[in-house]
Amino acid sequence: MKFDIIRLAHAEFNVTDLERARDFYVNALGFIETESDSHHIYLRAIEDANHHCLVLTKSDVPSVNHISFRVGTEEELDRLTHFFATQNLPIRWLEKEEERGQGRAIRIQDPGGIPVEFFCEMEKAECMLQKFNKHYGAKIKRIDHANCNVRDIDRVNQWYTENLGFKCSEYTVTGPIDNERLWASWLHRKPSVHDLALIHEKGPRIHHIGFWMEDSKSILDACDYLSSCGYYSSIERTPGRHGTSNAFFVYLRDPDGHRLELYTSDYFTGDPDWDPIKWHLSDPQRATLWGAEPPISWKKEAMPVQNILTGELMEIGEPMIYSEIRN
Amino acid sequence: MKFDIIRLAHAEFNVTDLERARDFYVNALGFIETESDSHHIYLRAIEDANHHCLVLTKSDVPSVNHISFRVGTEEELDRLTHFFATQNLPIRWLEKEEERGQGRAIRIQDPGGIPVEFFCEMEKAECMLQKFNKHYGAKIKRIDHANCNVRDIDRVNQWYTENLGFKCSEYTVTGPIDNERLWASWLHRKPSVHDLALIHEKGPRIHHIGFWMEDSKSILDACDYLSSCGYYSSIERTPGRHGTSNAFFVYLRDPDGHRLELYTSDYFTGDPDWDPIKWHLSDPQRATLWGAEPPISWKKEAMPVQNILTGELMEIGEPMIYSEIRN
Amino acid sequence: MKFDIIRLAHAEFNVTDLERARDFYVNALGFIETESDSHHIYLRAIEDANHHCLVLTKSDVPSVNHISFRVGTEEELDRLTHFFATQNLPIRWLEKEEERGQGRAIRIQDPGGIPVEFFCEMEKAECMLQKFNKHYGAKIKRIDHANCNVRDIDRVNQWYTENLGFKCSEYTVTGPIDNERLWASWLHRKPSVHDLALIHEKGPRIHHIGFWMEDSKSILDACDYLSSCGYYSSIERTPGRHGTSNAFFVYLRDPDGHRLELYTSDYFTGDPDWDPIKWHLSDPQRATLWGAEPPISWKKEAMPVQNILTGELMEIGEPMIYSEIRN
Amino acid sequence: MKFDIIRLAHAEFNVTDLERARDFYVNALGFIETESDSHHIYLRAIEDANHHCLVLTKSDVPSVNHISFRVGTEEELDRLTHFFATQNLPIRWLEKEEERGQGRAIRIQDPGGIPVEFFCEMEKAECMLQKFNKHYGAKIKRIDHANCNVRDIDRVNQWYTENLGFKCSEYTVTGPIDNERLWASWLHRKPSVHDLALIHEKGPRIHHIGFWMEDSKSILDACDYLSSCGYYSSIERTPGRHGTSNAFFVYLRDPDGHRLELYTSDYFTGDPDWDPIKWHLSDPQRATLWGAEPPISWKKEAMPVQNILTGELMEIGEPMIYSEIRN
Repeated sequence: MKFDIIRLAHAEFNVTDLERARDFYVNALGFIETESDSHHIYLRAIEDANHHCLVLTKSDVPSVNHISFRVGTEEELDRLTHFFATQNLPIRWLEKEEERGQGRAIRIQDPGGIPVEFFCEMEKAECMLQKFNKHYGAKIKRIDHANCNVRDIDRVNQWYTENLGFKCSEYTVTGPIDNERLWASWLHRKPSVHDLALIHEKGPRIHHIGFWMEDSKSILDACDYLSSCGYYSSIERTPGRHGTSNAFFVYLRDPDGHRLELYTSDYFTGDPDWDPIKWHLSDPQRATLWGAEPPISWKKEAMPVQNILTGELMEIGEPMIYSEIRN
Repeated sequence: MKFDIIRLAHAEFNVTDLERARDFYVNALGFIETESDSHHIYLRAIEDANHHCLVLTKSDVPSVNHISFRVGTEEELDRLTHFFATQNLPIRWLEKEEERGQGRAIRIQDPGGIPVEFFCEMEKAECMLQKFNKHYGAKIKRIDHANCNVRDIDRVNQWYTENLGFKCSEYTVTGPIDNERLWASWLHRKPSVHDLALIHEKGPRIHHIGFWMEDSKSILDACDYLSSCGYYSSIERTPGRHGTSNAFFVYLRDPDGHRLELYTSDYFTGDPDWDPIKWHLSDPQRATLWGAEPPISWKKEAMPVQNILTGELMEIGEPMIYSEIRN
Repeated sequence: MKFDIIRLAHAEFNVTDLERARDFYVNALGFIETESDSHHIYLRAIEDANHHCLVLTKSDVPSVNHISFRVGTEEELDRLTHFFATQNLPIRWLEKEEERGQGRAIRIQDPGGIPVEFFCEMEKAECMLQKFNKHYGAKIKRIDHANCNVRDIDRVNQWYTENLGFKCSEYTVTGPIDNERLWASWLHRKPSVHDLALIHEKGPRIHHIGFWMEDSKSILDACDYLSSCGYYSSIERTPGRHGTSNAFFVYLRDPDGHRLELYTSDYFTGDPDWDPIKWHLSDPQRATLWGAEPPISWKKEAMPVQNILTGELMEIGEPMIYSEIRN
Repeated sequence: MKFDIIRLAHAEFNVTDLERARDFYVNALGFIETESDSHHIYLRAIEDANHHCLVLTKSDVPSVNHISFRVGTEEELDRLTHFFATQNLPIRWLEKEEERGQGRAIRIQDPGGIPVEFFCEMEKAECMLQKFNKHYGAKIKRIDHANCNVRDIDRVNQWYTENLGFKCSEYTVTGPIDNERLWASWLHRKPSVHDLALIHEKGPRIHHIGFWMEDSKSILDACDYLSSCGYYSSIERTPGRHGTSNAFFVYLRDPDGHRLELYTSDYFTGDPDWDPIKWHLSDPQRATLWGAEPPISWKKEAMPVQNILTGELMEIGEPMIYSEIRN
C-alpha cells in the first residue's frame, strides 16, 4: 500500500436550483438532509455516520465540483501532498470547515483532469441504518464509486495503480486481438469492484456517481417511487445487470442532468491474487449481461468538472488516439 | 354456483383505544384512513377502490364484530336471506349506511357461531395502487381471508360448501389412518387458496384475518418497519412459509391482541377439476414448510366474536368430540 | 355470467425445430415437460396440476396454432357451440384426445380472426409447486393471458364483453379529447387484470402470451438465467413496470420469434363495481410507468395465427380506420 | 495495521460421513465441489476464485478442525510466526499442499483456545459468479465470518484488537449500568461488520460459520430449497434480522450438527472514525430486531474444536467469572 486511502467518500454537485434539487434528492430519492444554508445542501445516506456523502452547491452552471476520497489518518494528507508536489499537479489546501463538516483537505486536478479531494476527518452524524420507519424513496445506503471519462486512460490508470495503490478488478479492451488497447478499468481501494472507474472518452468528465443499494428489489422500488413523484423522465437507463462488475443498476439524471447510478451486488475483491477480469468492448454482454443497449444519451453525455483552482469548467477534449501519441 | 359470493371483503374489529389502534394500523401498518369519527376508523389498503376493508370500532372489550363477504348483485342479498331463513340462523338486516360507506347488508351467526355479513354496494374511494410514493409501513394490498375456529368443523364445512358454493382447496385431517377426521379446511370463492379457513378448535373464535402482500420481501420489510416503530413485540410468529396454502406469512397482534396475517404467494384454484390437497395434522411441514413450530400463543389464542343480535361476546366452547356426536 | 368461462388455460405454438425449442422452453425457461412425441412437446408450469399450459408443435412456419379458454363444465361447450352457430363464425369440434391430454373441445376463428379454443376436461399431472428443489430457469408459475392484435377493436371488444361475459379492467383511448376512440382493452374472466387483451393493430396477430411469475425478483433472476444459457438476445424488452395493469414484466422471444411475457403483480378485479381504468395512448407512463420506450420490434412485430379450418396462416390486414367504417 | 490480514477465508469441519455431508453441502446447499478424495471434500462458493472456502474431512467425531485467515503476502506469515512465538501459543507450520490447494501456512491455538490458521497462497479455481444457470440450492456467495465462544472475552478481544489489528464494529455488554462487562464483540479486518465474533461463553467452541448471501430473498429461497430436499429439520433458527450487525440471517445445522449462518446485508465499517455500536444483553431487539427469541439449542449448543497439535478435542470450560479473575 502506497497510501492509506480508504474509499470514495463523497462528491459535490453544482446545481442551478437548490429547491428543485432538494425535491429530487430529499423528497424523491430520500437522502437525509444533515444541514443546509442558502448555498448548500449537505446530504447523507442511510448507512452514513458522517456529515455528508453528497453536497449540492448553488451554481450558475451544472457540473461536478469534486469527488473526494477518505484517507486513514491526517498524516496521509501530508504524505499525499508531498507526492503530488512531485507530480506537477495543481494542488489546493482546504482548511478545516472550508468544506462544512470536513477537516482539512487537499484537492488536485488529477492527471486526467478530474477534480479529486482527499480528507480524513468528518463530523459525525446519526446513522439511520436501523431506523427503518424513516427510510423512504430510493433508500440509498452509501456512496460507492465515481465513473470518470479521461482522454488518456493508459496514463491515468497507471498513475492510480502504481502511485496511489489502487487495484484493478476488471478492465475492457478494444481493438483487434493482436493489437488490443485498454478502454476502461475498474479500480478499487475498498475491497469491492471499484471506487473509481476510468473510461477512455472525451474528458475530463464524470460519467456518474454510483450509490450502493440494499438489493435489486430496492432498485425496482426506487423506480416506482420516483415515477410516482413525477420523476419518470429522470430514469435514463432502466434496471439491468452489468456484465462488467456483475452489478444490478439503474441510472438516473437529476434536474440539472447530473447522473447517478443506483448500484448493488458486486463482489469481494480484497484477495491478494485476484486476477482482473478482462472484457472486450464488442462483447454483447459487457454493458448489460442481458444484452440490452444503453440509450444514446447514456453513451454520449457526461458531467463537466471544475478546475480546482479557478472554478472554471475544465475544457473537454477528444480521447487520445494511441497510435499517434505512443512514440 | 349456489350464490354469487365474490370474496371476503372486510372485517370489523372492536378496539379499546382508537388512538392507540390508529397508531398501529395507520402509522405503522400504513393502512389508508378513508375517514373516521369519534367511534370508528375506516381503513382501506393499497389496492382498494372502495371505502374500507377494515373497520376499527371503539369498544370496552376487544373482539371481532363481524367478517363480511361481498356478493355480485343486490338480488343475491334477498336470495341469501331466503336461504338463511330456512336454516334457523340468527339474521339481522342493516340499512344502507348503517355501516358507514356500505349499502344494505345482512348479518348472520353462521352454523359455527361466527358473525358473518353479506353486502353488495360500497362507496368508492381512490385506489392508491400506483401512488407508490404514498405507500409506507407494511404496504398491505388488500384483505384476503378469515381463519375461524369452530367447534364442529364437519357441520360448518359442509354448510359452506354444499349451501353457499364454497370450494375446498386444501384440508387437514387428524387421527389414525383408518379413522381420519377433518381438522381444518381452506375454502374459497375467489380463485385463491381461501376466503375462509375453518379449524376444529374452541369456538366460535376467529384466529386471524389475512391480508395480501406484494411478495415475501414486502413481509420482511414490514417486520423492519414495525420494529423501528416500537412494535417488535407485535410480531407474534416470525416470517415463514406455510406447508398448507404454500403462502409466505408473518403473524401480528394489534395492541388489543387482534391477530393479522400478512400473507402472499398462494396459487390459482379456479379450475373445475382442482383436487383438494390433503395434509395430516402430524406432518412436520404442514404448519411451516421449514419445519418450525409456531409459538404457544399462536396455537392457543384466538379472537372472541360478537353476537350479531345482542352485541354480547359469543360463549366459547370446547371442540366437539366426534365419536360422541355422530350417532 | 353469460358463459362459465374460467380463464385462459393454454396456447399452442408452431415451432420450426422441436429440439431448439425444447432447449429454450425446458432447459432455459424451466417448463416441465409432461410428455412429448415426434411432433409435439407438452409443457406445464410450476403451479399446473394439468397436462399442459403450452404445446409446441413441429411446423414449417412459426405461428400461433390457437389459444384456449377453459370452461367450468362440459355443458358449456354445447352452449357455446349453439351461440357460435348464431354468429356465423368458423367452428371446428375436436374429439377427446385430438389434442393430447384434453377432453373434447371447440375451436373458432373469433370475430377478430384469432383462433380460440374452449375446453373443460384435461388430464391431471403432478403439481410441482412445493418441489422447490425441482424449480430452475424462469420458474414460471402458470399461464396468465393472451394479448391479441385485431383490426376492429370496437367490434371484437364488444363481442367478448357483451356475449361471452368478459369484463374490462383497463382500456386505452387514442385521439383528441373530444373524439377519443378505443385503442386497447384488458378483458378478464378470472379476477385479475386480464385473460385477453385486445389492441387495435394490424391483425389478426397475437402479440404475446403472458405467464405468471412469483414476484419481480423472479423476473430478474430469469434474465440472469437466460443470459447465462446464451439466450441474452431473447430478452427483447428488459424488465419494467407497465402503467396499464401495474404489472412488472419482461418480454422474451423464443428461437422462432414467438413472444412471451413474464408477468407479475397485477391486482384483484373481481368486485362488481370495478371501474375500468382509462389511459390515453399519449401518456408517457402508460406503456412503462418508468417512462421508458419499448424497442421498435416490440411495437411492430407480432405472431401470425392459424386458420382453424385450413391450417393456413390468416391473412394480416391493416387496422380499420374508424371514420370510414362507422356509417 | 499491525499485520496485513485480509479476511476470514475458509474453515474445515470434521464430519462423520462424507457422503451424507456431500448431500447436504453440495446437493442441497449448492456448494461447488472443487475436488475430493477418500477423506476430504473441498468446496467453494459462487464468488470464489480459489480452491476452497470450506473443507469437509472424514473423522470419527464432529468438530471444527480450524478456521483460516488469509494474509496479503507470504512475508506476513513469517512476521506472524515471530509474534506468536513471543506469546507462548501452540504453533504448527504446514508445508505447501499439506492442506490441499493451499500454500504454506501456520496454525495456532489462539488465547481463547480456537484453532486458527493463517495463509497467503491458494490455488485458483473458476469463479462461477456469472454462471447463473449453474447456481442452485442456497446460492452462497462466499464465506463471511466465524463466531467463537471463549471463556475470557476480555483477554481474547484485547489480543485480536491490540496485537493483530482487528477493529471492533459492535459489542454487547452485560450487567448493571454501573458495572457493565463485555459479553460479545464483533471484530473485522475486511470492512464489514465482522470476520470474527467473540462471545463470552463455555469455550473454546465455535458457534457458527457465517456465509454471505445475495439478499434476504435468497435466504428465503434457501429455506424452501432445503425443505424440499428433506432438510427442513436442518433449519434451526428461522429467518430474521439481527439487531447486532443489522444482518438478515437463517441458521442451519449440518447432519453432524455443525452450524452455518446464511447472512446478508450488514454495512461498511472501513471508515477511520467508526464508533462501535453498543448493545446491552437485555435489549429485546439485540438478538432479533423483530423481538423473537432464538431456540434453546441455538443458545446452548456450539461446535467443539480441535487441538492443532494433537488433534484431540479441546476441553470445554465454563466462562470466567470476572469478579474472581481480575485481581
